[in-house]
Amino acid sequence: MTAIDFQTFIDRLATASGEAILPFFRTALLVDDKNAGGAFDPVTAADRAAELAMRALIRDTFPSHGIIGEEFGAERADADYVWVLDPIDGTKSFIAGMPAWGTLIALTRKGHPVYGMMHQPYFSERFSGDGKAAHYRGPRSERALMVRPCDSLDRALLFTTSPRLMNAADRAAFGRVEEAVRLSRYGGDCYSYCMLAAGHIDLVIETELKPHDVAALIPIITGAGGIITTWEGEPAERGGRIVAAGDRRVHAAARMALMTG
Amino acid sequence: MTAIDFQTFIDRLATASGEAILPFFRTALLVDDKNAGGAFDPVTAADRAAELAMRALIRDTFPSHGIIGEEFGAERADADYVWVLDPIDGTKSFIAGMPAWGTLIALTRKGHPVYGMMHQPYFSERFSGDGKAAHYRGPRSERALMVRPCDSLDRALLFTTSPRLMNAADRAAFGRVEEAVRLSRYGGDCYSYCMLAAGHIDLVIETELKPHDVAALIPIITGAGGIITTWEGEPAERGGRIVAAGDRRVHAAARMALMTG
Repeated sequence: MTAIDFQTFIDRLATASGEAILPFFRTALLVDDKNAGGAFDPVTAADRAAELAMRALIRDTFPSHGIIGEEFGAERADADYVWVLDPIDGTKSFIAGMPAWGTLIALTRKGHPVYGMMHQPYFSERFSGDGKAAHYRGPRSERALMVRPCDSLDRALLFTTSPRLMNAADRAAFGRVEEAVRLSRYGGDCYSYCMLAAGHIDLVIETELKPHDVAALIPIITGAGGIITTWEGEPAERGGRIVAAGDRRVHAAARMALMTG
Repeated sequence: MTAIDFQTFIDRLATASGEAILPFFRTALLVDDKNAGGAFDPVTAADRAAELAMRALIRDTFPSHGIIGEEFGAERADADYVWVLDPIDGTKSFIAGMPAWGTLIALTRKGHPVYGMMHQPYFSERFSGDGKAAHYRGPRSERALMVRPCDSLDRALLFTTSPRLMNAADRAAFGRVEEAVRLSRYGGDCYSYCMLAAGHIDLVIETELKPHDVAALIPIITGAGGIITTWEGEPAERGGRIVAAGDRRVHAAARMALMTG
């Protein structure tokens, strides 16, 4: 398989998942849900439709590859190549009609993410990376993604989806970083990591991430020159408490503040 | 001037401001700023360029109208018709490359907003309203905006840009609403109010808004069937502490929780 074939295949995956999801975004289906008493959950319906579409394409094209998806679990998880899929990362943004959700598609080899894409189908944006380079394609432009330098916390722009998602101890640790940075902002979900890769923000700190929440983002961030680990400094691919930075200096400073209470 | 002329004029305003802003969004200009020691502020540059473009068009077309802009102050503020302009609402989202900022354009008559538009030029989205109806045009669809019903706080989806923007007393009051709702989310800026008008969320609560932060949003929200006032229940057009809701029942319940500590 050549590099061009692979890119074409990834684009087919993203297009198929987007077509499965978009009928459920900002539609009356979502409006109806609130009073339906849980009988029909349109986010889950969109999630499942997208994951099924991607699984079918992967099985047809790479029958020996494994698949781990948020909705339908694992198949051939011990294969050399395993796809890790999160059709809608940021379901609460999705429900609210906000733009900061996306489809996360990762390819892992022997457990390590080697390719990742974040696809925002409503706005036709694709952020991708392979750990060596990272790329953006959107409605207005196409360009390489590159982190920006940032030498200290007091110059850093920090994002987290919501401190309300953290337990009390983690929130206190996060608060130490928050007090030290230039600007702390909430919201963003997977979109924040892509803005970090694009050089617009410096730091993303979150907790309780699942492997499928982060696998696709790792090759995008490292491909753009950034760093992403757990708070303890371990590889991020198994999820947990995650700290991503565009610059190693601010990553080290943030980890220091997080881990020394 | 017919309704069609007016719509054409508003679209010209939005297009001109968008063209002035976009060269500054997600560009190297922003990356450079951090280390420039305040010598050049690209957000202010974008803000000013957009406001100048809109002011020139308004002066040419409606020389008797007044203009109040975030960047260049007031001219003919005592005219019957006054335009209220905020070229970039959500400058912190703008700086971070996030999508939830917009250009706010309001037309007031004798001090009351009679027309408003929120324009997101990067994603080509326009939300508009005149207090009787409200409308969305985006890259994928065009439709009427309509709030959704929501009869109590425990069913409500709440947004605020950030509780960190509130003083301690207001944050405590906000916390009472937050504990009562189904889901509370942060981020959003002017985008949240448009998602409320579109029927995706139920409640937006913020503080310390300026008139230009809110004037354009009022006719969009009321045009979509919603309600927007100060926490005290006064007209929202002078800014301050604002509570917007899609349903009067949840607006009343939120005000009750905010005002009775």
